[in-house]
Amino acid sequence: MNHTSEPLLTIPRDFRFGENEADALELDCGRKLQDVNLRYECVGELAPDGGNAVLILHALSGDAHVCGRHTPEDRKPGWWDDMVGPGKPIDTNRYFVICSNVLGSCAGSTGPRSINPATGKRYNLDFPVITIRDMVRAQKRLIDHLGISRLLSVVGGSMGGMQALEWAICYPEMVQSAIPIATTAQLSPQSIAFDWVGREAIKYDPNWKNGDYEPDRVPDQGLATARMLAHITYLSDESMSRKFGRELQEHDEYGFDFQRDFAVESYLEHQGRRFVERFDANSYFYITRAMDYFDLAERADGNLARALAPAQADFLVVSFSSDWLFPTAQSRAIVHALLKNRLKVSFCEIESDYGHDAFLLETDTLGPMVSAFLRNQREGRK
Amino acid sequence: MNHTSEPLLTIPRDFRFGENEADALELDCGRKLQDVNLRYECVGELAPDGGNAVLILHALSGDAHVCGRHTPEDRKPGWWDDMVGPGKPIDTNRYFVICSNVLGSCAGSTGPRSINPATGKRYNLDFPVITIRDMVRAQKRLIDHLGISRLLSVVGGSMGGMQALEWAICYPEMVQSAIPIATTAQLSPQSIAFDWVGREAIKYDPNWKNGDYEPDRVPDQGLATARMLAHITYLSDESMSRKFGRELQEHDEYGFDFQRDFAVESYLEHQGRRFVERFDANSYFYITRAMDYFDLAERADGNLARALAPAQADFLVVSFSSDWLFPTAQSRAIVHALLKNRLKVSFCEIESDYGHDAFLLETDTLGPMVSAFLRNQREGRK
Repeated sequence: MNHTSEPLLTIPRDFRFGENEADALELDCGRKLQDVNLRYECVGELAPDGGNAVLILHALSGDAHVCGRHTPEDRKPGWWDDMVGPGKPIDTNRYFVICSNVLGSCAGSTGPRSINPATGKRYNLDFPVITIRDMVRAQKRLIDHLGISRLLSVVGGSMGGMQALEWAICYPEMVQSAIPIATTAQLSPQSIAFDWVGREAIKYDPNWKNGDYEPDRVPDQGLATARMLAHITYLSDESMSRKFGRELQEHDEYGFDFQRDFAVESYLEHQGRRFVERFDANSYFYITRAMDYFDLAERADGNLARALAPAQADFLVVSFSSDWLFPTAQSRAIVHALLKNRLKVSFCEIESDYGHDAFLLETDTLGPMVSAFLRNQREGRK
Repeated sequence: MNHTSEPLLTIPRDFRFGENEADALELDCGRKLQDVNLRYECVGELAPDGGNAVLILHALSGDAHVCGRHTPEDRKPGWWDDMVGPGKPIDTNRYFVICSNVLGSCAGSTGPRSINPATGKRYNLDFPVITIRDMVRAQKRLIDHLGISRLLSVVGGSMGGMQALEWAICYPEMVQSAIPIATTAQLSPQSIAFDWVGREAIKYDPNWKNGDYEPDRVPDQGLATARMLAHITYLSDESMSRKFGRELQEHDEYGFDFQRDFAVESYLEHQGRRFVERFDANSYFYITRAMDYFDLAERADGNLARALAPAQADFLVVSFSSDWLFPTAQSRAIVHALLKNRLKVSFCEIESDYGHDAFLLETDTLGPMVSAFLRNQREGRK
């Protein structure tokens, strides 16, 4: 077992399934996917009673590396290292934590840049359009493979929260509790619109070639533009004003040109550049589309409460006051629908000016809340 | 004089100035512009006392054609025809209305696609980077040319409101009243960020060629992407939900592809396509940059009240509740700064879910307010 004093090292693992057609993954689009790989990481130890497993679900650009380091030399830890690890709010001394890279992504799991076993070439846009539910179906295979029959909790922010909701509906008997954070039960037309414009920017990159780009000539300009746009929606006007204001980057006066002038422009450019180093344009297409298609209520003629009726889990729903991508009203809609089903629901809107990114940053507030909820789940039902 | 029963026909006119260096337009960047043309339209008649002139100031993509039609066959009238014309809130039976296309634009006035008299070629990115104040300096030449010594009012929404504020500060003795609508005294870092991403999309269009594009090979894909992005900021989440919701465009079910699926995607694509037919990519660069640089307070070490101190006008400031591009708080900041200068200020936040576009759409509410204010200005001081 790890202790807070030594560095936490984690090991990426691969789980392959669907080698034959009978075992293939059935998708919402009607197609089946064979030879699926899920990259995942586990931290902590599964309790003898099997009741301490926590599945963490990542957002658009996340990966399986939720906490710790792969080698002691790694400069940066996993994406939610403030929240997950020994002695952290999601305490890996107590819980067996699992996180897998979502289907369709590009950080080890099968996605559009994987080799299509039927052709021996990359899928690219031949990869089936997947949904959030498809991602969850693939994760279910992994959880079965790990011999876990019931999850203490499914936890995720943003797109991770969408997966948490799907888990609670699709496999209610397997989900003791769910913590959807900064998320929505239905992508709004405004978010669909932002996704559309981001994909347009990629589509018009001359390197794009309708998804058939060469590995050494990727549509990085389009992808950087899409990321910069999305990044604005992750921040808030307040946090941008506090962080950058109208500060100029290098000079005391306006440059009277179209180079980077303002600090916020440099910041965005940096974010765009960093993103293309680690993310794939085709995956960006597939994962944003999965979010566009996410609409729980639609399955029950627009009645969200009815759509959530199968769920049996206890819920902790969290939103952030300045999140305008998935504003508090959208979390409240989830809470109301859960309450109509007489489920146990805790809800908190955390005051924060970090915007949507708050789910990654407000760990001082979010941490104790999640920690107490999990402890209560584990001890209350032990 | 026009009557409401007959169609209002308007005539585009050109005003050239700055043929010699002494007469050239001095700009904030330190450069001088020779051979400037302003395209403008006038409606109504100047009163014998000269006291009924109303200058209307357009937004980013507007033009001089504020109302009426150029020919009886024109399918569409000018951009603010609901507000301006005989018997309309800005009543051309009472007021002499002037509207000119801003410097840097592409609808008749001198801009980056104009011929540089020094080279005989298009300016393109050799055109000087202009400011909102530069636009107003050019308009001042036109108003002088028209023999108007004092404007009853300067009226504009969005970037038009920025110009109205500049008019009140730069030429206080010429401005009896000002109506800045849905505007700000300072572009926020969030808006700077959106402008940046829009320009990045244009920059990465292979036709862009650093602004030296051929007239038959313009960067229309980049410009369309920039426009679609900007268009999202002109609407509100509420208005998009009401107008489109998650409606699908052509099919009953998801297409499971990356074609237009949602009505909001088709709408945006249509907006982008329409925009590139009438607007120039280089002008988009220059005008968005002028807005980025707009910061009245910065001239007085961050003190907006001090920056507005020269103004003598009466003000009607209007904002819209769902405008998240220039939210009400930014109008309130203007109002507070004006009140500190003991100016007469009326302020109204109009309840609307149209977002920023409300200044073009909420004429039923905005109209009577503007009409009464103008009438009071004209009759109170006649």
